[in-house]
Amino acid sequence: MATQRILDFIATRRPAGPCLVVDLDIVEDNFRAFRKALPDSSIFYAVKANPAPEILRLLASLGSSFDCASVAEIEMALNAGATANRISFGNTIKKERDVAAAHALGVSLFAVDCVEEVEKVARAAPGARVFCRVLTDGAGAEWPLSRKFGCVPAMAIDVLTHARDLGLVATGVSFHVGSQQCDTEAWDRALGDAAMVFGQLAERGIQLTLVNMGGGFPTRYLKDVPSAEAYGRSIFSALRRHFGNRIPETIIEPGRGMVGDAGVIKAEVVLVSRKSAEDENRWVYLDIGKFGGLAETMDEAIRYPIVTARDDDRKEPCVLAGPTCDSADVLYEKTPYPLPISLTVGDEVLIEGTGAYTTTYSAVAFNGFEPLRSYVI
Amino acid sequence: MATQRILDFIATRRPAGPCLVVDLDIVEDNFRAFRKALPDSSIFYAVKANPAPEILRLLASLGSSFDCASVAEIEMALNAGATANRISFGNTIKKERDVAAAHALGVSLFAVDCVEEVEKVARAAPGARVFCRVLTDGAGAEWPLSRKFGCVPAMAIDVLTHARDLGLVATGVSFHVGSQQCDTEAWDRALGDAAMVFGQLAERGIQLTLVNMGGGFPTRYLKDVPSAEAYGRSIFSALRRHFGNRIPETIIEPGRGMVGDAGVIKAEVVLVSRKSAEDENRWVYLDIGKFGGLAETMDEAIRYPIVTARDDDRKEPCVLAGPTCDSADVLYEKTPYPLPISLTVGDEVLIEGTGAYTTTYSAVAFNGFEPLRSYVI
Repeated sequence: MATQRILDFIATRRPAGPCLVVDLDIVEDNFRAFRKALPDSSIFYAVKANPAPEILRLLASLGSSFDCASVAEIEMALNAGATANRISFGNTIKKERDVAAAHALGVSLFAVDCVEEVEKVARAAPGARVFCRVLTDGAGAEWPLSRKFGCVPAMAIDVLTHARDLGLVATGVSFHVGSQQCDTEAWDRALGDAAMVFGQLAERGIQLTLVNMGGGFPTRYLKDVPSAEAYGRSIFSALRRHFGNRIPETIIEPGRGMVGDAGVIKAEVVLVSRKSAEDENRWVYLDIGKFGGLAETMDEAIRYPIVTARDDDRKEPCVLAGPTCDSADVLYEKTPYPLPISLTVGDEVLIEGTGAYTTTYSAVAFNGFEPLRSYVI
Repeated sequence: MATQRILDFIATRRPAGPCLVVDLDIVEDNFRAFRKALPDSSIFYAVKANPAPEILRLLASLGSSFDCASVAEIEMALNAGATANRISFGNTIKKERDVAAAHALGVSLFAVDCVEEVEKVARAAPGARVFCRVLTDGAGAEWPLSRKFGCVPAMAIDVLTHARDLGLVATGVSFHVGSQQCDTEAWDRALGDAAMVFGQLAERGIQLTLVNMGGGFPTRYLKDVPSAEAYGRSIFSALRRHFGNRIPETIIEPGRGMVGDAGVIKAEVVLVSRKSAEDENRWVYLDIGKFGGLAETMDEAIRYPIVTARDDDRKEPCVLAGPTCDSADVLYEKTPYPLPISLTVGDEVLIEGTGAYTTTYSAVAFNGFEPLRSYVI
């Protein structure tokens, strides 16, 4: 997945220290694949996945909309050329002053998942459109999905009715099937719930018009994942199943699926050692770890492909760890990672599929190490 | 644990957004308590716990030495007034160019835990003093201690012999009993291992002189912890037990124990809600979470005391979560946290015992949120 442009950049520029290199051509390919797979859905790029200005400018120019988690992300999207009507404030946990700031910037679409949040939006962004997030179980997703966001569908009916009563536009329902969702059928049950909420609210005289189908589209790490086209087919057929010939306006919010495979981290082997003469596995220490941008290795959830110049040599499993003085800064240990037996101090390694959820997760200065640098080419 | 000075600062300055406030008087008290408890040990403050310049300057002026994890931390310690002979490069995972940079800055004490690292130090810092870290089991520690650092004692003998053979000064042994170590006896077995290494190397003609007893000294979170004095007594008695009347030079490396209880994070309740009408626990969302500085809530390892203005009201357990759009950004869920039933949006909360391992762990810009701000007073 390291494109020739990325390999050339690394070979020519020789950046010192760990860094992420993102190839914009891949981002553009991904955007076009989503648009082709789901031509009737609006694409709201999940800015949190990678807010690099070059990525946002490219997507804005291609006609993308933006799912933003904070006022800072809204400002980034606007600075990249998006108009406010192409921005959703998709975080269900917002300070009222942030709702007001977003409203002042022209944003008029907000996520909610409880009456308390509806009341904030009604006060700080009167007349805005709100969609209510409903819980899903996240089965099939590789990154853990907690109950943190959303409410049960029965409660969503009350939340949206309350929104209407407070003068907001109760516009629809959102859900998220879980990040790195490898089951193309995962959207089916959530769309069934959404259709149920549509039906019940129609009986109360509230006509919903929008289903925000969230993100969850995967990046290829070590295993193949279904294509955008396969997701598109499956989602369209679920929409038909649950909404018949009255399919609502739909939104998708790819983040990982848009930028994950566009980025490669260049890192360096700092140490290879064993803990005792009898130690079964080597320990391989890189100059990047859990606090330097690879936070998604938490609980070994995301397993990145790692490429070295010695991959033709025999491989043996090793424990892979980061460079900080923190015992928890271990990437893969429960399932040791096979790396070439000849790997040695100073070798360069490429960690693929790292375009999403790396740079901004990175600690600001842990152990004195600077945050992950990023080059968008 | 929020001192009057901290409370006054927050009340007067009203900083917007979450922030850490550190009271230097407490840091000074802690330093003096360690010096009194272990008068014959040198104190090497673990800079990674909190590298705020004001803290480093205070400790340098009090005569502290510094345990540094990177060249950047070494530079911070030097800038704060430490001399190079009061600095240990305590990370066992170092790039050779960083060893050279430290050597050029005058640092001459390095941690190693394998022959590969010894070779780097021999090349990049010829003639330096090295101590070899040995593994301990970490029993009794609340923050997980992996096998990431150190080797078995039998291997340490070879590592230090190799160091001597390459012209380095094989100076001693280090270990770490695990962070937030609440068992004052935890140092005993490790000191036994250290004494064994001393004895075996003496038979090879290598006279070790230093035991680096690491950190692990706890901060009071929700439970009482033993005093510095109690640790001092227990450690001194273990030193006598294993080294008789030939007690070596010793080092301790408090980090959490030096600054943990000196800091308080001021945060704000962003949302209180339930997921369904039948939901047993409320969800309370703060404007700080796992990615904003509270990384040590990972696996609910560290449980911070939380103080609100409503603490006289009845308390009920809640799930406590951070403000980002990440499902994993949940602080306490497996063991819900009791908070006042009257707690509401906009309430201020004080998270105590947060002086260590917060600011620098904080993500650089996750979800567009800025890193944790810090005021040292």
